[in-house]
Amino acid sequence: MNDFIYDVPVKVYFGKDQLGNLGEELKKYGKRVLLTYGGGSIKKIGLYDKVVAEIKKAGLELFELSGIEPNPRVTSVNKGAEICKKEKIDVLLAVGGGSTIDATKFIGAATFYEGDAWDILTEKAQVTNCLPIVTVLTLAATGSEMDPGGVISNLETKDKIGYMHPLMLPKVSFLDPTNTFTVSEYQTACGSADIMSHIIEVYFNMNQDMYMLDCVAEGLMKTVIKYTPIAMKEPENYEARANLMWASSWAINGFIDGGKRQAWSCHPIEHEVSAIYDITHGLGLAILTPRWMQYTLDETTVSKFYQFGCNVFGIDKDMEPMAVAKKSIEMLSDFFFNTLGLKSTFTEIDIDDTNFSIMAEKACRGRVLPGFKRLNQQDIENIFKMCL
Amino acid sequence: MNDFIYDVPVKVYFGKDQLGNLGEELKKYGKRVLLTYGGGSIKKIGLYDKVVAEIKKAGLELFELSGIEPNPRVTSVNKGAEICKKEKIDVLLAVGGGSTIDATKFIGAATFYEGDAWDILTEKAQVTNCLPIVTVLTLAATGSEMDPGGVISNLETKDKIGYMHPLMLPKVSFLDPTNTFTVSEYQTACGSADIMSHIIEVYFNMNQDMYMLDCVAEGLMKTVIKYTPIAMKEPENYEARANLMWASSWAINGFIDGGKRQAWSCHPIEHEVSAIYDITHGLGLAILTPRWMQYTLDETTVSKFYQFGCNVFGIDKDMEPMAVAKKSIEMLSDFFFNTLGLKSTFTEIDIDDTNFSIMAEKACRGRVLPGFKRLNQQDIENIFKMCL
Repeated sequence: MNDFIYDVPVKVYFGKDQLGNLGEELKKYGKRVLLTYGGGSIKKIGLYDKVVAEIKKAGLELFELSGIEPNPRVTSVNKGAEICKKEKIDVLLAVGGGSTIDATKFIGAATFYEGDAWDILTEKAQVTNCLPIVTVLTLAATGSEMDPGGVISNLETKDKIGYMHPLMLPKVSFLDPTNTFTVSEYQTACGSADIMSHIIEVYFNMNQDMYMLDCVAEGLMKTVIKYTPIAMKEPENYEARANLMWASSWAINGFIDGGKRQAWSCHPIEHEVSAIYDITHGLGLAILTPRWMQYTLDETTVSKFYQFGCNVFGIDKDMEPMAVAKKSIEMLSDFFFNTLGLKSTFTEIDIDDTNFSIMAEKACRGRVLPGFKRLNQQDIENIFKMCL
Repeated sequence: MNDFIYDVPVKVYFGKDQLGNLGEELKKYGKRVLLTYGGGSIKKIGLYDKVVAEIKKAGLELFELSGIEPNPRVTSVNKGAEICKKEKIDVLLAVGGGSTIDATKFIGAATFYEGDAWDILTEKAQVTNCLPIVTVLTLAATGSEMDPGGVISNLETKDKIGYMHPLMLPKVSFLDPTNTFTVSEYQTACGSADIMSHIIEVYFNMNQDMYMLDCVAEGLMKTVIKYTPIAMKEPENYEARANLMWASSWAINGFIDGGKRQAWSCHPIEHEVSAIYDITHGLGLAILTPRWMQYTLDETTVSKFYQFGCNVFGIDKDMEPMAVAKKSIEMLSDFFFNTLGLKSTFTEIDIDDTNFSIMAEKACRGRVLPGFKRLNQQDIENIFKMCL
């Protein structure tokens, strides 16, 4: 068991009547606020008007950057940083899902850098400072509202890179489950696939486990499995939306890590898929994860799958471990592809093997992906082929 | 489901090689450090020397207050506040278990008050400020290292009062499981009874539950049940000590509350027992909790006991709910009194019914204790009688 530091100083206002605290929180950081958001769905649901009203009520000055893309692009980050420098912005307010929040983190960091924000992602430049960030979340998925990382795409180079820095951690996040009532059935499913994957990336580890945190991870997975179909059928079910929203934050805010120092597997592999094909991240993860599990299951890893099967899916503990392991992968596939109704193969979403080799090479960056099981370029290509 | 604010800005250094960060953390708050501790067990285990070495290495000035009692007394708090005022202390360093840390919190607050610290406990005076507090924990039990509250006794008035204030939250806590290797079998058992009780006080709630957080609470309880007997038999088992230590913090740091606004039951009742008889808090809780459960179990509460029995003790879900409920109470009693070997009745620890009436009156302060089930003075007396 490794030593670790717990330090999660994000203040979270959770619930349906918390937005009245927004102005007061923003004011702590200054007067000039840059509001960032995506394609305008926050206007449709009336959230934009509520947020603007709070900003005005607090006597703050409002600037705006809209149009942040799903799979947000470095061009948006550069545009935002430009505004911050020009308008001397004091605090960033990201209203949206993970894409908007991710982009906003790099806007905050790039404001203190005189070149292309892409240099930060490629680690050519260091993060030296970051504008304070406040978020209002509208999608339970990435957990960006409570973690210090983000993923940015570069369409020119067809790269999609994840990066994190403690300075980019949001100061305050507003999590109101009612802001996710209008999330479509499909996006709810993809969001939950993303949450499940975050937990799985940490949970599947052979030698650095803390039993207590494994119990917590299992509880989070059971929560996603229980409430996603409810939220899909009854989009305004507060209990379901609330459980998914808080689980999405816990999945990746560092609570369940407890000193595990293991590289993730499915996320870096999926990033190469959505970098080229611009598919929803959660869908890519849903297709990849069960195949990655099949590929990594063997005598050395079976005990973790056995634990997963018994404690998350309630499979009979008396069954033979390898049988439990295989059944657990079937049950996860059933959850993704039947319960959530997600497409189950690359073929169904028009991805063929054309780019498998180049995507695999990029995923492991010419070396080996040092996750749960070490995967080289050929392994990753094999996993891609299993997804066809 | 109620709204809530998550805000736990305590930095925790967890693990066996973290004390090298102590000097740097203390320095952030000033030069003059008051080290507080109890009866000297930290000298026996060599921790005192290590802590003092770190303080000297950092070039800080050291002051000391030793002799803080188990069930810490307001006289110690006043003594500490006196030193802080006289010596212009910048930062408090509590090295010990919950008693030392609790007392230190009130020393920090009383430094900014010109009267008797008891006035803060009795809410005659308000907390206006508090010296920054750093802790080095030596006992997995109260969770004081990560929460803003504490309990102080007044032997003159035979009162024992709990109080919390956000300003009293520790800034930094060092949790090294090896510092609990010398905790006796008995104190390990009492500590775990305290942790279990903290979780039970939050978990047993009929209408404000968040499924996800109930899963987390169940995971914490399973952790305590799994590892306490191991730690008792193998006191230097790092895995067991680490799981108990981190579970003790999570039990009461606010993670599992999620908007529950329910008064606790067994804690205020037990405080009246240990205020008079000076018994170990965890022992009192172990004796009281199963009786409180028997007393509150009925048709309106059975579903929560059913959930507890199935998910924590693995009782067959197909059994009749009331049978599961009763069996869950038996299994908890078995854990406390057989596995942990704690005394199971007041009679065995020389407590008779002499003070039941006055203790019951004090516990509900002449009104009704508004917990899981509302309990009036007579109810509490009845529960005391069940403990004989």
